[in-house]
Amino acid sequence: MELLKQRILQDGKVINGNILKVDAFINHQIDPQLAFGIGREFYQRFKDTAVDKILTVETSGIAFALCTGYHFGVPVVFAKKQTGWNMSADVYKGRVYSFTKETEYTISVSRQFLSTGERLLLIDDFLANGQAMLGLMDIAKQAGSHVCGVGIVIEKGFQPGSRILRNQGIHLESLVVIEAFQNEKIIFKEA
Amino acid sequence: MELLKQRILQDGKVINGNILKVDAFINHQIDPQLAFGIGREFYQRFKDTAVDKILTVETSGIAFALCTGYHFGVPVVFAKKQTGWNMSADVYKGRVYSFTKETEYTISVSRQFLSTGERLLLIDDFLANGQAMLGLMDIAKQAGSHVCGVGIVIEKGFQPGSRILRNQGIHLESLVVIEAFQNEKIIFKEA
Repeated sequence: MELLKQRILQDGKVINGNILKVDAFINHQIDPQLAFGIGREFYQRFKDTAVDKILTVETSGIAFALCTGYHFGVPVVFAKKQTGWNMSADVYKGRVYSFTKETEYTISVSRQFLSTGERLLLIDDFLANGQAMLGLMDIAKQAGSHVCGVGIVIEKGFQPGSRILRNQGIHLESLVVIEAFQNEKIIFKEA
Repeated sequence: MELLKQRILQDGKVINGNILKVDAFINHQIDPQLAFGIGREFYQRFKDTAVDKILTVETSGIAFALCTGYHFGVPVVFAKKQTGWNMSADVYKGRVYSFTKETEYTISVSRQFLSTGERLLLIDDFLANGQAMLGLMDIAKQAGSHVCGVGIVIEKGFQPGSRILRNQGIHLESLVVIEAFQNEKIIFKEA
């Protein structure tokens, strides 16, 4: 997605040589016009797939999941992050390991919002190690629903997440793929 | 907003006689078409006000803030909830007391995303005791920005939040106001 690449080059910041900060337009301040365009782009890429519901994780996936759901005309569900494992029995739970924070957390979705046989499109802002997506896929499996695709705004192509998902046969669409950081420069993978 | 009232009557649930659950379409599962309509309605109600930016708090305010920002064509910023008071010096911080959870938490916004003189429209899904809005107003004050309005999806009219905000001269628009729960029935305040 060319518009997104340009915006990353313009407003993204590379910190310590390997961390991309996009909090000016993606995950603290959000550009709603861009978010809406991102939702439209996910719709274009998955429009030949039957999608019943969009599933994401709080917090920064919500805006893009919402805009995608708007274009598909389907409900959006966001998994909640919890600090503990103990919670209501009425939820599906998944464990997510965060390599950044070196800690594990729990995500949960109310059982009433996922149904057997439902076709889920998973959306998130970043894909790096793929742990959050694996947590959502585990929840989808518990619900007996089917993950028909994964849409990612920014993929870090040099981390293993995309390989892990594709090895499981997942239809993955990343709007931009970052191949490397060279000094403070962002190298995109050409489509 | 008649459509929202009807949806609350259809899909909302009153629990223990005084808690309204709207997680089927507002704050766990979201109906994107409804969220977009809510954004349009906030735009209609505040369109004669100069608005530079939308400000909300994670998590459940994000969808409605985003859709409002889309209609105004302005950026959306969401304050982050933190467990501790210690954090980066580059943020404005506010304290929020939660009557529901009987605990205080901290919200923060990066200094770079709020500017002196900027006109902020605050958006949230619920208004009850008004503590989250007071926390955002405190952050706005620290930034030297101006709160030009507060837009709320569902106001609990029997709790003090709306009175507290109006006493401070805030232009408050609530899309629906709940006057009371009678048994399991929701009584709306007529506009």
